[in-house]
Amino acid sequence: MKTTIISADDLRYIVNRIGLDELMDETIHRLTEVFDDYHPGETVIPVRGGFKYSHPHLGLIEWMPGMRIGDGVYIKVVGYHPSSGALRGLPTILSTQSMYSVSDGHLVSLMDASFVTALRTGAASAVASRVLARSGSSVIGLIGTGAQAVTQLHALSRVFPLEKVFLFDVDAGAMESFPARVACLKLDHLSMESGLVKEWIDEVDILVTATSVGIGDGPVFQDANLADHIHINSIGSDFPGKFEVPNSVLARALVCPDFPEQAAAEGECHRMMPEDVGPDIQTLVKQHDHFSNDRERCTVFDSTGWALEDIVTMDLFREYAGRFKVGHEIQLETISTDHRNPYQFLMEHPDAAAPHIIRRNA
Amino acid sequence: MKTTIISADDLRYIVNRIGLDELMDETIHRLTEVFDDYHPGETVIPVRGGFKYSHPHLGLIEWMPGMRIGDGVYIKVVGYHPSSGALRGLPTILSTQSMYSVSDGHLVSLMDASFVTALRTGAASAVASRVLARSGSSVIGLIGTGAQAVTQLHALSRVFPLEKVFLFDVDAGAMESFPARVACLKLDHLSMESGLVKEWIDEVDILVTATSVGIGDGPVFQDANLADHIHINSIGSDFPGKFEVPNSVLARALVCPDFPEQAAAEGECHRMMPEDVGPDIQTLVKQHDHFSNDRERCTVFDSTGWALEDIVTMDLFREYAGRFKVGHEIQLETISTDHRNPYQFLMEHPDAAAPHIIRRNA
Repeated sequence: MKTTIISADDLRYIVNRIGLDELMDETIHRLTEVFDDYHPGETVIPVRGGFKYSHPHLGLIEWMPGMRIGDGVYIKVVGYHPSSGALRGLPTILSTQSMYSVSDGHLVSLMDASFVTALRTGAASAVASRVLARSGSSVIGLIGTGAQAVTQLHALSRVFPLEKVFLFDVDAGAMESFPARVACLKLDHLSMESGLVKEWIDEVDILVTATSVGIGDGPVFQDANLADHIHINSIGSDFPGKFEVPNSVLARALVCPDFPEQAAAEGECHRMMPEDVGPDIQTLVKQHDHFSNDRERCTVFDSTGWALEDIVTMDLFREYAGRFKVGHEIQLETISTDHRNPYQFLMEHPDAAAPHIIRRNA
Repeated sequence: MKTTIISADDLRYIVNRIGLDELMDETIHRLTEVFDDYHPGETVIPVRGGFKYSHPHLGLIEWMPGMRIGDGVYIKVVGYHPSSGALRGLPTILSTQSMYSVSDGHLVSLMDASFVTALRTGAASAVASRVLARSGSSVIGLIGTGAQAVTQLHALSRVFPLEKVFLFDVDAGAMESFPARVACLKLDHLSMESGLVKEWIDEVDILVTATSVGIGDGPVFQDANLADHIHINSIGSDFPGKFEVPNSVLARALVCPDFPEQAAAEGECHRMMPEDVGPDIQTLVKQHDHFSNDRERCTVFDSTGWALEDIVTMDLFREYAGRFKVGHEIQLETISTDHRNPYQFLMEHPDAAAPHIIRRNA
């Protein structure tokens, strides 16, 4: 009864073996499939819990549990420490996820969650955009060119015949470094141009807002000169009062959340009356033909990050780890064959291994 | 930035190297020290969350978070599956705990929690009993002789000059197998006798109730022929309506909870008016001289399991793992040196290791 620990090196091996494009395609495919098959009542997603603190620095550790009934409990733990970069040269977000069997409570697997969260957030936008954006969309606008923008562009490039990308970020460094960051995606045929949003927004078919705009500081663009058919993937709105899309756009658009309860609490939908909110992403996928006319009007995908997406990607990587036989298989739980004796596991077991001696700095 | 995974084999190595008695002594010592130094406001223990389900079998997975401010977030995950033993030959409880740094959200360590929970529950009873029971207490009564009874007897044997143990369990098998289960504790000088509670309770200095009595089926003994000075460690009361101690005993005893809020919700204290509940365990330790007269009256330790105790034992084993250099050190989180590029970790890192190829059945 071992736990499969998928290390960062194992993850890198899996991604390099599959190929980044093929992995994104598979993630888009799996999400589409899961949304299409989704029945409410198959999963239980409670509200997340967490600790916020200001000592030693401002930070937040949250746990996001989810259960697929009859199968597994998934817990993603996310640490957000805004000063980690400047102070310690670390990412501001560190995240892991674990899966427990509902048959016996066994910890089945543990892995990183930062990379796969970026991956599935991109893939979810591709799924929504495929329903809501014009099928020939070729011009993308990115407002906010940080980490999320990389996977957003990657995912959209897999489902649209992209030709041109416009960029804007309040941080000039983030804007200038963006082309180098997506160089590995072989998008050489794309022309990239940076500039103020108002200078290019009239040309855009699909707009992605993935900013860290401050609470109350939105929107991140003005409602002027937008194409009638513009589709917007709003990624950055993840806290009450933090928003990216102008009210007038929300008012006339078909606004589709990933996870309605959560989007109503912290997404763009937070500023809308419940009756004005459009169908959620699983409805979009199930009834995609029904929305073909909406491709000619303004649409918004309000992406707040649905725990179901994390379940899908964790399952995907568990599958790959099994197929490629990578991962550390560790007997973590103490199993006493006599359940009434907590000390029994201390006796020699037939399959006991020597303790794992750490070779520090080896 | 690696995560230390302490496997069951590593845990066994640590315990065997330290010695079980020495480990229990150290746990009792650490708990005493931490209770003595405890200031409310140093830790934050929110209510636990969890999933209950009936498919594929009746079960429960709960997460129990706790934070020591400025230091770490600890999350214990406990699976309870009553039919695991009969159906799958597994323990009904499987449990792991993890610790995250509040400096950056890094998962510092992961280990089993079943064994250490049994250990700390025994140790906590020893700490409370040392304040509330007569110092020369030599006769113990155990009602319920399952897994918890093993560590309860062990812990009490480390702080009292025990001579005699009386046993009762509704399950005759659990009663008969008990002496063999504590044989490793070298308590050969103890005489053990099993029988109905009423046949032996008048001789008992310290009573331990560690039963799985059903909701509404308590108490597990009658208020008749108890010594005036009896001290009771009530371990099994962990759910509203589940109780072990008669009301009349609670009414005249000094009843001391481990964690008052939790004990009021699910412990013996659940059936008391708040103003009738005595001091909690940290107060007992801090002001131990103040309670010396109470050793001559009836006292109850209402043990529901305080997350602070889990923090203490996890720290203890992390320390031992470091000292003995055991544990698996795994780079779990994907760290991109360019925080704006979630794909950057995929490039060759100077310290990248080959993926860990599982040798299945090796």
